[in-house]
Amino acid sequence: MTRSLNPLLEGKPAAPLLVVISGPSGVGKDSVLMRMRELGFPFHFVVTANSRPRRPGEIDGFDYHFVSTERFEAMIRDDELLEWADVYGQYKGIPKFEVRQAIASGRDVILRINVDGAATVKRIAPEAVFIFLAPASLDELRLRLTMRRTESPDEIESRLAVAAHELEQARHFDYVVINEESRLDEAAGQIRAIITAEKLRVFPRQVQL
Amino acid sequence: MTRSLNPLLEGKPAAPLLVVISGPSGVGKDSVLMRMRELGFPFHFVVTANSRPRRPGEIDGFDYHFVSTERFEAMIRDDELLEWADVYGQYKGIPKFEVRQAIASGRDVILRINVDGAATVKRIAPEAVFIFLAPASLDELRLRLTMRRTESPDEIESRLAVAAHELEQARHFDYVVINEESRLDEAAGQIRAIITAEKLRVFPRQVQL
Repeated sequence: MTRSLNPLLEGKPAAPLLVVISGPSGVGKDSVLMRMRELGFPFHFVVTANSRPRRPGEIDGFDYHFVSTERFEAMIRDDELLEWADVYGQYKGIPKFEVRQAIASGRDVILRINVDGAATVKRIAPEAVFIFLAPASLDELRLRLTMRRTESPDEIESRLAVAAHELEQARHFDYVVINEESRLDEAAGQIRAIITAEKLRVFPRQVQL
Repeated sequence: MTRSLNPLLEGKPAAPLLVVISGPSGVGKDSVLMRMRELGFPFHFVVTANSRPRRPGEIDGFDYHFVSTERFEAMIRDDELLEWADVYGQYKGIPKFEVRQAIASGRDVILRINVDGAATVKRIAPEAVFIFLAPASLDELRLRLTMRRTESPDEIESRLAVAAHELEQARHFDYVVINEESRLDEAAGQIRAIITAEKLRVFPRQVQL
């Protein structure tokens, strides 16, 4: 595709970006995103579609888009999802309209997805910015998974084996950000710098969905 | 050339960059660089070689490398200069050893050069990061040139004609930063973001000279 010159050169605002943040389980994708929201970074947070029933306290359209299994399968059929997964019989996925709406309104969109999901998005939206969040080391990742106490020792070892494989996928991403537990602000700042820099490219990426 | 994976993934520091900051005369290249130094951005400032006599107060090796015309011509012959110009019979140029030394010591190097010079550096060091500093508009550039009172009205018009041509060269750069007089910190911050982001690329640029 031919890219257009940056609109900044004509005194117009930069085009919005689709930013994918991925990385091994336990690396801290949620913590970094939460920190970015706390620091007031302006971006659109995508609400995921989910086929499981709404739990008390959850708000439709905020926590998730709650849809029926039938509706979700129709969305799959009609190619309305950027990426989806069947997790133990429950569907989760990213509706394209969410991303389209945000971009149309001029806001950057950040997607937090696992490494497999990022590969899917890369096929559908190659012009997105792909950021790989990596642990300082596999030992640090083990410590982090142990600390959060949601996995058994066996599950932790199996997640680490997957992580080692996922780290090799970093080469398919554009950027790598090391997320050390004690340096969340540094990782958040680096992601912000990447977004700032990408918007200043003479020929910026143009997401089409 | 084949690029290597970012050393950050192995817990090693990122490789240093060669950053070229260019743009039309009067756009504020010096002001932005000075601001970056004031803000304590760590980078190596390249000392230019010059064939004119040293003036009182100037320090050899700090303000310039003062060399004889014969020595300068030998440097041209021996391909020791990244870029040079003959300005009314006086030579000015960037010694490659300056850049090599800084990069070898792990520091980023920032070069401030005019648009023609940037094209030369791009041929010699295509892996440098090329940043085009642009005025918010040609009207703002006219105002800026008028304010600094070093050019006559005729010279200003001739510089503006050159600037209009130079703006078209922006397409050969990697990034564009708009330098508005009142927003020097924003431009400095954007250049810092570009440098931060470039060091986070999964396959970073590797300068060879």
